[in-house]
Amino acid sequence: MVSGRFLTRTKQCPYVVMKALYLLLPLLLAFTLPTKPKRIIFFGDSITQAGVQPGGYITKMQEMLAKQNKAADYELIGKGIGGNKVYDLYLRLDDDVLALKPDVVVIYVGVNDVWHKRTYGTGTDPDKFVKFYEALIRKIQANGGRVVLCTPAAIGEKTDFSNDQDGDLNAYSNLIRDLAARQNLPLCDLRKSFLDYNVRNNAGNKEKGILTTDRVHLNDTGNQFVADQLWAVLQGM
Amino acid sequence: MVSGRFLTRTKQCPYVVMKALYLLLPLLLAFTLPTKPKRIIFFGDSITQAGVQPGGYITKMQEMLAKQNKAADYELIGKGIGGNKVYDLYLRLDDDVLALKPDVVVIYVGVNDVWHKRTYGTGTDPDKFVKFYEALIRKIQANGGRVVLCTPAAIGEKTDFSNDQDGDLNAYSNLIRDLAARQNLPLCDLRKSFLDYNVRNNAGNKEKGILTTDRVHLNDTGNQFVADQLWAVLQGM
Amino acid sequence: MVSGRFLTRTKQCPYVVMKALYLLLPLLLAFTLPTKPKRIIFFGDSITQAGVQPGGYITKMQEMLAKQNKAADYELIGKGIGGNKVYDLYLRLDDDVLALKPDVVVIYVGVNDVWHKRTYGTGTDPDKFVKFYEALIRKIQANGGRVVLCTPAAIGEKTDFSNDQDGDLNAYSNLIRDLAARQNLPLCDLRKSFLDYNVRNNAGNKEKGILTTDRVHLNDTGNQFVADQLWAVLQGM
Amino acid sequence: MVSGRFLTRTKQCPYVVMKALYLLLPLLLAFTLPTKPKRIIFFGDSITQAGVQPGGYITKMQEMLAKQNKAADYELIGKGIGGNKVYDLYLRLDDDVLALKPDVVVIYVGVNDVWHKRTYGTGTDPDKFVKFYEALIRKIQANGGRVVLCTPAAIGEKTDFSNDQDGDLNAYSNLIRDLAARQNLPLCDLRKSFLDYNVRNNAGNKEKGILTTDRVHLNDTGNQFVADQLWAVLQGM
Repeated sequence: MVSGRFLTRTKQCPYVVMKALYLLLPLLLAFTLPTKPKRIIFFGDSITQAGVQPGGYITKMQEMLAKQNKAADYELIGKGIGGNKVYDLYLRLDDDVLALKPDVVVIYVGVNDVWHKRTYGTGTDPDKFVKFYEALIRKIQANGGRVVLCTPAAIGEKTDFSNDQDGDLNAYSNLIRDLAARQNLPLCDLRKSFLDYNVRNNAGNKEKGILTTDRVHLNDTGNQFVADQLWAVLQGM
Repeated sequence: MVSGRFLTRTKQCPYVVMKALYLLLPLLLAFTLPTKPKRIIFFGDSITQAGVQPGGYITKMQEMLAKQNKAADYELIGKGIGGNKVYDLYLRLDDDVLALKPDVVVIYVGVNDVWHKRTYGTGTDPDKFVKFYEALIRKIQANGGRVVLCTPAAIGEKTDFSNDQDGDLNAYSNLIRDLAARQNLPLCDLRKSFLDYNVRNNAGNKEKGILTTDRVHLNDTGNQFVADQLWAVLQGM
Repeated sequence: MVSGRFLTRTKQCPYVVMKALYLLLPLLLAFTLPTKPKRIIFFGDSITQAGVQPGGYITKMQEMLAKQNKAADYELIGKGIGGNKVYDLYLRLDDDVLALKPDVVVIYVGVNDVWHKRTYGTGTDPDKFVKFYEALIRKIQANGGRVVLCTPAAIGEKTDFSNDQDGDLNAYSNLIRDLAARQNLPLCDLRKSFLDYNVRNNAGNKEKGILTTDRVHLNDTGNQFVADQLWAVLQGM
Repeated sequence: MVSGRFLTRTKQCPYVVMKALYLLLPLLLAFTLPTKPKRIIFFGDSITQAGVQPGGYITKMQEMLAKQNKAADYELIGKGIGGNKVYDLYLRLDDDVLALKPDVVVIYVGVNDVWHKRTYGTGTDPDKFVKFYEALIRKIQANGGRVVLCTPAAIGEKTDFSNDQDGDLNAYSNLIRDLAARQNLPLCDLRKSFLDYNVRNNAGNKEKGILTTDRVHLNDTGNQFVADQLWAVLQGM
């Protein structure tokens, strides 16, 4: 009778089980089927353009994910073009970013907005910098993407604030920090991280060679450093 | 019977007449009722901002239209803001221009794109100048408006090409001329007109005081000159 | 014969007394005749041009000397001209400074060498800044004058190194510090003093109004501050 | 007595002959002994630095003199340093020029005074340009040298005055022309010659490749052209 009862109960069981299975199906699938990888676009200038090269900061993140067996969870895409300022990003946002429907967009821009003031007379006014940056955020969010902001790391690595454009670079970094705070967006404060690193590791007050090759572009240590800093922000998203 | 037939035909006549009248009504109304005035927006920088003041070039056009009893045919609107460059126009295009559904938009910009290179280090790269200019045209046309292009008249009136930024101003004027030619758009070549006028009227090679008060902004003669030059293009549209 | 002995001794006295007087004459004269005042020339730009105005830093030093009854000991002369860079000082050194045979020359220059890079594109290259500065020192010393160096105080008073030209101003201040060290010359490090003062007194990170009226030129507190800083160096010379 | 008369006359002869010889000696020496060659220094920037290289404009003049058997009559010395502005010439005038006691100094400067405004923000103010230029002339003349002035040829070869810095280059050329006129000094107006040549030979409005390799520095045709233009001025001195 035990078996009878068991059978009876077994017969009754399928309905309940199936019902539970149907209810649990999405959860089960989520654990058993491959997930769609999170698509992260790094949107920036020459630093990001170099980021997808061997040894670049995006390549290094990819390699790190592979080691952690998380390569399938993320799709990292670099969309950097040398010389780009904030409005260059704006002009190619639709084609290079929104068309790819990214989950997350890391905006990493600002060096040329400051630097080009001196080199070409075509830097970006601070108020326009904010306006175009806000337009980037607005359009990415309207497209369903989340945004990560970065401050521009360095134009020169001297630690006594005597790099030619330190003042302006700090001012534009402040604009980005304010923007992140105002809109409650994640910020990777590379400017601050670079300064802190240099204070600890650049006793000679050198203008390059610590995290950069040429005051701006990343050497191997710099690429690893940016990869670490960015991943610290991205892993929680 | 004649009369009967006549009456009958007379009775039938109104139907035909009325039918003709109904068919002709829009045409008749067009001749007898006031037409919707053509809305023209002048979109630019401080020169246009001053254009709506007493004595300004837009005010002068308005007065000229009044004298010719054409005031009701046109609605002239100035949308100039001091210091604007091409991407400032872009940033406020939707609110300040497209929302007003203009029939014609006169884009009059370029002085600050060149000038700010020297004064603030934030002029506009030539390739970006063209890209944002093209974006302005594309969006205005998509909104149903026609576009008139202007070259930037002057930063200095010396006739021997020794005004500090003549080279760059000529280069950016060439960019606008090429754009007008490429897209087959009406062009008011103020740069050329100003130079021609100065060659005839500025024998002393003065840097200001002929058509401008300060090398850039229009004096009374300059406002009349721009009004005449612009209307020569606009009247045919 | 007290009187006799007295007379005898009185007769002997003149020889000894006169000998002593002759020997002491220079010393006596030094105490009884007016000394030639020490001539100090403040050689600089608009900050120094304003320094001789009521409330200016040179005027304040003069008033301080009067209070201390030392007005006759010093002749303070301001030779500042607005907009001057290091090579402007060089061009007018002979006429404005050396011709006056100063005992001390305070060179207070550098703001425009940095600032004019942005405003006019005519700042001074760092290596030329040093070369002309060295030429100033060499010619003043060859003329018998002693030299005091000053670092340029500020272009903006924000304390987080986000004033636009902080980097360059710090770099040029370093050039002056190195020059003072290399040639063992007295230095009034106004750049450092201003920063220290602002860190203590500018909690709001304001860009002006603490020691300056407009980011560069001195307000009343600033004039007093510079007078104090300079006198601390000058009093020992 | 023929011999006696002869002897007598012979005896008288020497006095007259010798007297004549003494009087004519300088003239005779001038025709028979080698003359001291005329020392000409070309004092300038990178264009002149390249001028002494094979194919350079100074080398070409030297070769031309050799062909005309005049090599011994002139000593051509190039003293050009890349990047030099008018005050760089001033700073090295004593060592590089005056110490060599030149008969003629050709001052060929101005491109960097204009160009560096854009590239480094360290161009030369027009009034300082004139002051240092005047100081060069004054010191060379006080040293016994004659001075030839040159206008800066080109920063870009486009013929429609749309090279970026045409305005400023024309303005500084005017300053040099005025200086030459005011002081009645020989002028080699390379700016004008280059423009005229380009109007005839640059129908395509190219920015380089006609007389320059890179908008500024001379190609082979340019070096020959400058050699010809300069020699036309120098041969008469």
